[in-house]
Amino acid sequence: MSNSSTDGLRVSCEAVEQFVQDVLINAGVKEEVAEDTAEGLVMASMRGVDSHGIRLLPHYIKELESGRINPEPEFSFDQKAPAVGQFDADHTYGIAAGIRAMDYAIELAEATGVGHVSVSNSTHNGMMAYFGLEAAKEGMIGVATTQTSANTRPPNGVRPFFGSNPICVAAPMSDEEPFCYDAATSAITFNEVRKQQDAGAKLPRDVAANERGIPTRNPEEAVQLLPLGGYKGFGLSMVVDIFNGLLSGMSVGREVSEMYGEDISNRRNLGHYYAAFRIDAFVEVEEFERRLQQLAEEVRNEPRQNEETPNYVPGDPEKEAKGEREQRGIPVPKHELEEFDALAKKYDVDPISK
Amino acid sequence: MSNSSTDGLRVSCEAVEQFVQDVLINAGVKEEVAEDTAEGLVMASMRGVDSHGIRLLPHYIKELESGRINPEPEFSFDQKAPAVGQFDADHTYGIAAGIRAMDYAIELAEATGVGHVSVSNSTHNGMMAYFGLEAAKEGMIGVATTQTSANTRPPNGVRPFFGSNPICVAAPMSDEEPFCYDAATSAITFNEVRKQQDAGAKLPRDVAANERGIPTRNPEEAVQLLPLGGYKGFGLSMVVDIFNGLLSGMSVGREVSEMYGEDISNRRNLGHYYAAFRIDAFVEVEEFERRLQQLAEEVRNEPRQNEETPNYVPGDPEKEAKGEREQRGIPVPKHELEEFDALAKKYDVDPISK
Repeated sequence: MSNSSTDGLRVSCEAVEQFVQDVLINAGVKEEVAEDTAEGLVMASMRGVDSHGIRLLPHYIKELESGRINPEPEFSFDQKAPAVGQFDADHTYGIAAGIRAMDYAIELAEATGVGHVSVSNSTHNGMMAYFGLEAAKEGMIGVATTQTSANTRPPNGVRPFFGSNPICVAAPMSDEEPFCYDAATSAITFNEVRKQQDAGAKLPRDVAANERGIPTRNPEEAVQLLPLGGYKGFGLSMVVDIFNGLLSGMSVGREVSEMYGEDISNRRNLGHYYAAFRIDAFVEVEEFERRLQQLAEEVRNEPRQNEETPNYVPGDPEKEAKGEREQRGIPVPKHELEEFDALAKKYDVDPISK
Repeated sequence: MSNSSTDGLRVSCEAVEQFVQDVLINAGVKEEVAEDTAEGLVMASMRGVDSHGIRLLPHYIKELESGRINPEPEFSFDQKAPAVGQFDADHTYGIAAGIRAMDYAIELAEATGVGHVSVSNSTHNGMMAYFGLEAAKEGMIGVATTQTSANTRPPNGVRPFFGSNPICVAAPMSDEEPFCYDAATSAITFNEVRKQQDAGAKLPRDVAANERGIPTRNPEEAVQLLPLGGYKGFGLSMVVDIFNGLLSGMSVGREVSEMYGEDISNRRNLGHYYAAFRIDAFVEVEEFERRLQQLAEEVRNEPRQNEETPNYVPGDPEKEAKGEREQRGIPVPKHELEEFDALAKKYDVDPISK
């Protein structure tokens, strides 16, 4: 199932998912929580969103071992209005909690047209597209957002205030996998900063700042992000925090707990916001899907500034990665492989490199 | 009611609103449509959003005279699901149609928690904050978006594809007027381009492009806009078009009709999307308002890069303008005053400069 290479392996999506799931289960995580968490992480890796993919497994296990993560949550759902519910994640993996919350949003949408679910007492919920696409599978528009710990400085600030607070909107198309917008409200992410660092390249202008808040193009110095397009992105990140932190009753702004750090035994108490829109409560679904397909094709066919660069519709790069990785497997770099082998040994699971 | 100055007048908000309303009514517009259109235009002017304010009146009257605007619309509302309705604007002023659509969204929210209204067969709907704030007045979160004609080029494009497609989110606060995010998904607006042109100043980098799509800092050459923060803003403008054009059954992308042009007798057939969120379907309203107030104050009190520049929360500059203009009146430049005097004469209304 794997092709060796000098600096890592390619492992089939199925094998990776089985591995992640087995590690989680043997580490004591309730089966259905382990299944969904594995699915969410592997979907991110398949889509080329490696920052939110299987590379997180060692950290996720550390959070479990330290007591931050509740391996056997008792989920509860409180329907507070016909179109609105509050989902208590009971401190388990945010991915597993989130997909259930989106399923509730879909159920509410069946009944009312649009369903909204606010999640409380959660943790890192991975790639937003996992939830947005869950709604799109049902022929609905899915909206998924989360708060993150402060990493982005205000337009006139010197230190981070809001997180990179991403927004995902997914919608079904007639002839291909769904449209999927999924982007942080920061100008860039730390994962992109790291990539430029590894490549020895400069950052674009006005995307990150040094520890005094001064914009820098040196990835080594970049310890905080700048908001997308300045004050507009800053405002948008505040909107995301309002929906995720205030509507869920969780913390906001600089009070949002950190993912990493010396001690990771604290509960994170994150909030998320998910919504599902039944398209046929607005217009005929097939007509919508056909028109979105046509719109996407028009965007792709627009005349180009640079002929070598394709015109992408949101989600296109991820679809390309998925096509390639379904064929060739998920690339697992050597240092990840070593971490995975250690987890395999510790939790008595067949190593992924086998 | 007015203080003369060398290049125009200050006119009280009440006098301006009465004038706009009287012109519209005498030009044949149904009374309630004229009232709401006047209120929306004057609110924009009061908030300092002059691009969407009373300067539009002469153009609005031309659109009426040319037959684009239906002065006596028959509005209709089709509730398609418990939380969703479709509002037919019947080709009248988008401001008047929009405020009714938001009122329906508020009604749907009362019943289900969150109400959504899609508007079809509409025209220019002015400043989004007018609608968002309508929901906030009721203690709800208001969301207001619209599509606009193509003016923003894709990241790799040479010509405009989507419009500046703005997003507004308003929410009530405990001790002051509501939080109000209201921003285009383009990096800048043509109004800001014009301001730089008038000031003989350069544009910031990467906010506008010349007619071949090449980024330019020369406002004279800037004939199209660039998306906010590149591909992320582009994706967001596509999301706005999906909600406004596809969910309403109206046109999208380059097919969206233009506001200005040689012939303005065509129907514009614009779509809008409005939503109202009943906060108490999520958390206790007073607690939400108190926490949002506290969050805003934390943002304002953050340490600053530049001590001379305040830290703004979305809506703060508009609140400042409103405070000033409620006191001193709305500034009406000389060329607008001349246009208004001509309208006063034509439609037998007391001139504003009187």
